Amino acid sequence: MEYIKLNVEGMKCVGCENRIKNALINLDGIENVVANHESKEVKISLNNEVDETIIKETISDLGFEVVE
Amino acid sequence: MEYIKLNVEGMKCVGCENRIKNALINLDGIENVVANHESKEVKISLNNEVDETIIKETISDLGFEVVE
Repeated sequence: MEYIKLNVEGMKCVGCENRIKNALINLDGIENVVANHESKEVKISLNNEVDETIIKETISDLGFEVVE
Repeated sequence: MEYIKLNVEGMKCVGCENRIKNALINLDGIENVVANHESKEVKISLNNEVDETIIKETISDLGFEVVE
């Protein structure tokens, strides 16, 4: 299984983590999401090819910043 | 000045409050936003007529629930 790890600024609590998880898990091709506000990381397991741009835009649309 | 008070579920921290503030303050006609995760309230001061539906959708799009 492929997976993507993104550094995301702006998560401050478990509520922030959950909002990212809930939005990403609804995208096609995403198997699992682990978001951690302490490490500022979001780890995404894929079960299909997913355009990384869509993942990043979904996170940005929630008001968080994906750090390159 | 007119103002709107909304009950919003899902804010857990100051980071959550700030994401709502930052999104709403960019809408036309909004003068100020006070969000409080403890009272679960978002108070919005308007300097012009604003469609309340747009305000609610902006909050929902961030992953929070506006409670009627």
